[in-house]
Formats: sequence, structure tokens, C-alpha cells
Amino acid sequence: MKTTLGQLAELVVGTVEGDADIAITGVAGIREARKGQITFIANARYGKLYAAGTKASAVVLADDISAGGCRAQLLRVKDPDTAFVKIADHFAPEPIRYPPGIHPTAVIADDVELGRGVSIGAYVVIEPGARIGDRCIILPHTYVGHYTRIGADCLLHSGVKIRERSTIGNRVVIHCGVVIGADGFGFNIVEGKHVKIPQVGTVEIEDDVEIGANVTIDRARFGKTHIGRGTKIDNLVQIGHNVWVGETCIVVSQVGIAGSTRLGDYVILAGQVGVGGHLDIGDGVTAAGKAGITKDIEPGQIISGVPAQPLDKERRMQVYVRRLPKAYEKIRELHERLTALEEAAKND
Amino acid sequence: MKTTLGQLAELVVGTVEGDADIAITGVAGIREARKGQITFIANARYGKLYAAGTKASAVVLADDISAGGCRAQLLRVKDPDTAFVKIADHFAPEPIRYPPGIHPTAVIADDVELGRGVSIGAYVVIEPGARIGDRCIILPHTYVGHYTRIGADCLLHSGVKIRERSTIGNRVVIHCGVVIGADGFGFNIVEGKHVKIPQVGTVEIEDDVEIGANVTIDRARFGKTHIGRGTKIDNLVQIGHNVWVGETCIVVSQVGIAGSTRLGDYVILAGQVGVGGHLDIGDGVTAAGKAGITKDIEPGQIISGVPAQPLDKERRMQVYVRRLPKAYEKIRELHERLTALEEAAKND
Amino acid sequence: MKTTLGQLAELVVGTVEGDADIAITGVAGIREARKGQITFIANARYGKLYAAGTKASAVVLADDISAGGCRAQLLRVKDPDTAFVKIADHFAPEPIRYPPGIHPTAVIADDVELGRGVSIGAYVVIEPGARIGDRCIILPHTYVGHYTRIGADCLLHSGVKIRERSTIGNRVVIHCGVVIGADGFGFNIVEGKHVKIPQVGTVEIEDDVEIGANVTIDRARFGKTHIGRGTKIDNLVQIGHNVWVGETCIVVSQVGIAGSTRLGDYVILAGQVGVGGHLDIGDGVTAAGKAGITKDIEPGQIISGVPAQPLDKERRMQVYVRRLPKAYEKIRELHERLTALEEAAKND
Repeated sequence: MKTTLGQLAELVVGTVEGDADIAITGVAGIREARKGQITFIANARYGKLYAAGTKASAVVLADDISAGGCRAQLLRVKDPDTAFVKIADHFAPEPIRYPPGIHPTAVIADDVELGRGVSIGAYVVIEPGARIGDRCIILPHTYVGHYTRIGADCLLHSGVKIRERSTIGNRVVIHCGVVIGADGFGFNIVEGKHVKIPQVGTVEIEDDVEIGANVTIDRARFGKTHIGRGTKIDNLVQIGHNVWVGETCIVVSQVGIAGSTRLGDYVILAGQVGVGGHLDIGDGVTAAGKAGITKDIEPGQIISGVPAQPLDKERRMQVYVRRLPKAYEKIRELHERLTALEEAAKND
Repeated sequence: MKTTLGQLAELVVGTVEGDADIAITGVAGIREARKGQITFIANARYGKLYAAGTKASAVVLADDISAGGCRAQLLRVKDPDTAFVKIADHFAPEPIRYPPGIHPTAVIADDVELGRGVSIGAYVVIEPGARIGDRCIILPHTYVGHYTRIGADCLLHSGVKIRERSTIGNRVVIHCGVVIGADGFGFNIVEGKHVKIPQVGTVEIEDDVEIGANVTIDRARFGKTHIGRGTKIDNLVQIGHNVWVGETCIVVSQVGIAGSTRLGDYVILAGQVGVGGHLDIGDGVTAAGKAGITKDIEPGQIISGVPAQPLDKERRMQVYVRRLPKAYEKIRELHERLTALEEAAKND
Repeated sequence: MKTTLGQLAELVVGTVEGDADIAITGVAGIREARKGQITFIANARYGKLYAAGTKASAVVLADDISAGGCRAQLLRVKDPDTAFVKIADHFAPEPIRYPPGIHPTAVIADDVELGRGVSIGAYVVIEPGARIGDRCIILPHTYVGHYTRIGADCLLHSGVKIRERSTIGNRVVIHCGVVIGADGFGFNIVEGKHVKIPQVGTVEIEDDVEIGANVTIDRARFGKTHIGRGTKIDNLVQIGHNVWVGETCIVVSQVGIAGSTRLGDYVILAGQVGVGGHLDIGDGVTAAGKAGITKDIEPGQIISGVPAQPLDKERRMQVYVRRLPKAYEKIRELHERLTALEEAAKND
């Protein structure tokens, strides 16, 4: 598939600096790109580092960013991110289609309500009492438990496991290997042994949530574990029983959230963050990667470290620690000067 | 399902303060509860924070905890945790039953020994030489490898993968997506390449263990990886080859334990703890969340931090670090006072 | 299976100190070993700790390591690691064989190209356009997406999920529950909502890679996520979209690598390391467990800590912090001595 750079400029409403007639055959990262491909410079740092060395034939970049010695043709745009999504889409292979229909090997209980236009793959199992909304796509080896309700236009990839009585909204995307509704982790010590606390609650996932591969979201002890509308969860995240995640949150890979904690809306937890149980994380909180959150966090805070504290405090603390060698030197110096003075005073 | 508060008081042997005749329709957390529901106050902090604001019609709490301005009816008990489990159980939906029987799609090798009353779900695969104990429930898409032996009354949820020659005790619960018996991670460098060390050992899980969703427990290089009786493992935990976990341990979500490490009995590892290889963690050790354990730990210690050290030491260290700005100020002050003295001495 | 110690000495080209005629029945760790078994001492520390107490009948150890009071027969060798692999292999149970053939329940699209001698297990699903190389073994419940190409002699364990258009090299081993090619985690905020950035790239795994259980490797936003030849990845690792991992790397359990980061060759990331996005990690870098890498790392560095810095710097910093109580004492002392001098000066 060949397209001229000029045609791409039209597509993204940008301006070509250089030869608009060259043929572009595909997209690639700035360091991987080869002749004939178009790449992009997302930020000034990238431009400085890699623009001069790229083998791409053309580069998408913002109006105000230097091309940094780049010899490729330039395509100037207002918003390179959005422009590049459009261009990547243009060259993207045809997405895989899953036509409506039910694979003959799917084991679907008699009383399951299936919406119109659903696509159910090979070896899917849907237990009694479940309900699947219109146009859902459920790929091979996925399991839907008893009485679980899934809204319309959901995409469940291969090998998803959703336990009984869960509720999934509309347009939810669940990636391979996700487990929803496993028992919460709760035990009472009775006579020196851990006795399981029944986990009789459920999980509720609202509309437009996306859940990454091999994520685990536990069912509630009672009541509901809740994931709010529009929240996006990356791979291998753990969400404990009775956790409440607000709307439009971003939960990056390998985050763990312990039982009964509440996240507000627009919370961002970067990779490998850990959040203790029974905490309140306010709206708009952002936690840096690997933060360990051990107490309630006020709305809007940016936090970092273990235990997590405001980012500027954490950074200052690190500066103070890095200054320690100098401080110890200074203390030694003061000691010596003081000793000299003491000696002098003695000799007076 | 309606029950009066008085009936619940009888169930949990408690005392009503207020109207024992009100109807209770279900349970919920103190912040989610609505009219007609009963909730509970597990500790004084929760009471202070949320008791006054709850919309629950009744609250279970310990005899010695203040109701903190709560307007709901009170149900006083000795042990609110246990009482609430009973009440939640009372209102819980009927648990899902998996009647005995073998789904026609299960692929079970001819020589597999199946106990009495087993329930084998759709698309389960059981390889030659395996043995399944009485009354085991094995849910759809689960795989049991060659010569693996599973005791009685186990529950294997959907999509569990148990590799060959593993041994599982009685009453073991294994949640969705768990992988038991994958090869340990061991390579020798030979001529600049990683050459796999054969992992010819097995995994042994004792009675009454519970294993959370998507956990991975590797088989031993030789000998056995061992999980002791009554130990409970949360989601997404990694247990390396030849690890020995004692009895009645609690291993919280996303913990990683490297190869050949030994945990005693009653060890508690909180979320995201990492334990290095070839270490000895004594009986009754408790490690705080995100601790990084790099050396042997004596029995009974409470540890925290990276590298992990006794909790009180770690806390004091954090206090010392937080005091640094003041210390630096003090050093400046000493410098100035000393300089003044030196000047004065010079002028004498 | 019984073998004399002398026969084992021949096998590994070693020397017996003691009785070469005793019968050896199997291998075990130095602490688990019982009478009749052979064990090994990998390093001097182990020797000191456990050699005297082992119940093994024989011990493999290097020529230059003390037997530390061990009463077992000794088998001296140059390289105990390699020798013990050979011995463990000798006693290992027959490995499970998966004879060529296609299980009748496998659902394989008509146009899939299957190599010679493949073994396809029960309930495997292979989508249209896929290609499977010679002698591949694909175990039950594994899913191979549209147009995915798998080289020769690969072993895909049970429950692996490989999404569309991925490329897998030769002799690749993929453990249970691995997810390859799930969408990268990328969203643009549009009018206060997260809008998915299409992830139209692929994943490319080179020859001789091994991937641990429940690992997730995301497909690229465009272009490829790349795992280089001979790299070994442990369980529960997350590799983000567009990550480039070089050759012969070791990525230990629960590591997370954020999008678009590049690892050189021979990089070692220990357990639970986190690597930020868009970073360059040079050839031969080693990161200690739980390190948090936030900037580019020069080749050959050994790093540790959060944020990660050279290991010696990190260690010194920890020493400085541990010295704080003494420093504070010293500051107090200086203050007192100075005050005394000031008083004396005033009285002069």
C-alpha cells in the first residue's frame, strides 16, 4: 500500500516541508524506521536524540519542535500524537473480524440469554443464568460463570475467566487471561488455623472499562468490588475484594490494590504501585511508579516513594540524602576547628 | 429475604440497642450500605470516620466500641468479625453447586483414577497416569498433567494448569489461571549462551492450602517445591523452584519468592514483598508490604524496607532521614557560631 | 534405579573421596536429602552452613571447597553445577513425550500450514492464516491467533494465548498462561475521557527464547515489540508495547518494562525490577532486585535502588543513612562544646 506524503498531509491537515510526492509505505518508530517509512517525533528530547539519525523518509512533528538535523521530509502538524494515530491507522492491517455466530463447540447453558449478533468462539463455556448483550465477541476458551451479566458490544479475548454473579457493562474490553470474581483473600485465625471468610459479594465493571492481560479482580466479601466507567487497567494488576475504583482512572501494569480501598475519579497509579487496604485515594491523585501508599491521600496530590509522600517532599528528601557525604565532611571539619579552638583556649 | 434485627441478634448471640423488630434485607460496607441493610464497625477508626454518616439501618459492633453518633440500631457482639461472617452468610445467595458427573467434553486418559463423586467440567483435560480424589470439583478448561495426584475434596477453578507429577493434598482450593509446576528458572552460561538446567523435580501442595488467581508455583530443579499445610496464597504470587513454604503461612498478592528459599510456619508476607534466593525466613516472621528480603531472618521478627530490617529500625531510620533539613540547618548554625569564635580569637 | 557413586564419578569425570561402591538412588537438596541420595555444595557458604548436617550419602563439590565436617562420601569435580545437572538428569524420571499427531478436538482453520511432525493437543484453537513449524508441540487449551507464525521445534504449554500476526522463532519455549500480543496500554485524553490508541503493531520473538508462566508481552502500537535471540524471561513479567529486548538477556520474575524502552544484549534484570518507558538500557547492564530504573543506563553498569543508581553509590548511601544516629549525636556534642567555649569567651 503506497501513499504520497502529500496525501498523508491532507489526511492529518498538516504541512509538508520538503518533497510531498515521495511514496510512503508504512510507519515505524524513529529508531526502527527504514527508507519509505514515516515516523514521528513526540517530544523535543526525542528530536534531539534521534532525528538526525533516523532512516525514515518522512517525520511527523509539531509546528514548534526543531527537526534537529533530520534529513527526512517533514510533516508539520499541530498535534503529532493524534496525527500519527491517523497515519498508523491508515497503514494498519485490516483488523481481525469475528463474524456473528456461535461456534458449534461452545457449551452454552439452555437458559443463557444471548443478545443479537453475538460472536461466540470455540470452546467457550457459558454457565446457567448468564446473559450476554448484543454484538458481544467472546473468543475461544473463555468462561462466563453462573448468573453473570455482560452488556452490549463487549470484547472478551481468549481465555478470560469471569466467575459467577459478576456484572460487566457495555463496550468493556477484557484481554486474555483476565480473572474476574475470584474469592477475596480473607481468613480469620481460629485455633491457630486460617479459616476462610466466605466471599459472597460480586464484581461490577462499568461501561467502557478496559482490562489488561492476566489481571485479577477479586469478588467482594459482601457487596461489590467496583470498577468505574472509563477506567483503564494495564496487565497483571491485582484488585482486591471490595475495592472501589472511580471513573476514568489509569492503573498501570503490576499495580496492587488491597481490600476495601477506594480510588476517586481520574486517579493515575503508575507501574508497580502498591496501595494498602481500607484507604481513601482522592480524585485526581497521581502516584509515581513503585510508590507504596500507606495512608489516605487528599485529592489532586502527586505522590511518590515508600511510604508515599508528596513528590516534591520525596525529591527533596532524596537530595538531602545525596548530600550526606558532604555533611559528614562538614561535621568532621567543624570538629577539627572546634578542637583547635579548645586547645588554644586551654593554652591561654 | 427479610429477617428482623432481633433474629440476627439470636443468630450471633448479641444484644440489640434500639428497635429489634426492624426488617433487615441484606449486608453492605459501612459506606455503601442503604436503608434496610446491616453493616459493621470492625475497629474504632472506622467507627469514628463513618458511623455517624452510614445509611445502614443497623450496625454490628463490639461491646467496647463507641457508636460514634450513629443513628442506626446497634447490634452489640463480642467478636464483630465472626458475627458479621455469620450474618453475611445468612443473606448470601445460594452458593453455586457443581453436581457430581463428568461433562461429555472432558478428555480424560483411560488410565486416570477418578474418585467417587467427582465433578469434571467441560473441556477439562486430564493426562495419563493422573489420579483425582473423591468429591473433587474440576471446572472448565482446567488441565491436569501426567501422573499428577490430587487428593479429596479439592476445588480447581476454571483454567487452572497443573503440570506433570505434581502432588496436591486434600481440600485444596486453586483459583482460576493458576499455573503449578512450570519449569524453574535456571540457566547456565555456556559459551556466552544460556543453557537450560533441566527442571526434573516436582511440586507438592499439602492439605488445606488455597492458591489465588494467576499464581505461579514452579517445579523444582530436582526434589520438590513445597507448600505447607494450611498456607494461603493470594493472587499473582510467584514461588520459584525448590522453595519451601511452611504451614499456615499468609502470602499476600504479588509477592515473589526466589528459588530455594525456605519459609518457616506462620510466616506472613504482605503485598509485593520480594524474597531473594537461598534464604531462610524463620517461623512467625512478618514482612511489611514491598519489603525486599536479602538475608536470613530470625524467627518472630517483624521486618520492613529494602533491604528489609527490623520494623522499628526501619521506622527510626525514616525519622532520621526526615530530620535531615533540621540537621543541615544546625550544621550551618554551628559553622557560623564557630567562625564568629574563631574571628574573636584571632582578634584577641 | 540404583547407581554406584563410582559410576556417577565416571559420568561427570570426578574423583571419589570415600567409598565409591555405595549405591545412590536419587538426588536432593542438601537440606532435604536422605540416606541413599546425592546432593551438592554449590558454594562455600552452603558448605559451611549445611555440609556437616546433611543426611545425604554423597556430596558433589568443587575441588577447592572445604567439605566442612561432612560425613558423606565426597565426589570432587571441577564444575559442580554442570556435574550436578548431569547427575540429576541421570536420575530424572522419563520426560513426558508428546507424540506427533493432532488431537481430534483441535480446531484448526483450513488454511493453517502445519509443519511435519507437529503435536497438537486437545482443545487447541489455531485461527486462519497461522503457520506452525516442524515438530512444534502445542499443548491443550492453547490459542494461536490469525496469521501468527511459529517456527520449528517450539513448545507451547497448556493455556498459552498468542494473538494475531505475532512471529515466534525456532526452539522457543512458552509456559502455561502466557499472553503474547495483547493490546499495548495507550490512551489519549479527549474531552476528559481516555480514547484508545489503536495498537496495530505486532510481537516478534526470536529463536531460543524461553517465556515463563503467565508472562504478558504486549503488541506494539505500530512496528514490533521485540524479544531477542536466546533471552530468558521468568514468570509474571510484563513487557510493554514497542519494547525492544536484546539477545541473551535474563528477565527475572515480576519485572515490568514500560513501553518503548530498549534493552541491549546480556542485560540482567533481577526480580520485581521496574523500568520506565522510552529508556535505553545498555548492553550488559545488571539491575538488582526491586530496582526502579528512571533514566538511561550506560552499558555494563550494575545498578540498584529506587531511583536506580550504580550499586556502589547505592550501598554507600545506605551506609551514610545508617550512620545518621551517630551524626546527630556528634552534632549535639559539637553544639555543647561550642556553647561551653562561647560561655568561656563571654566570661573572659
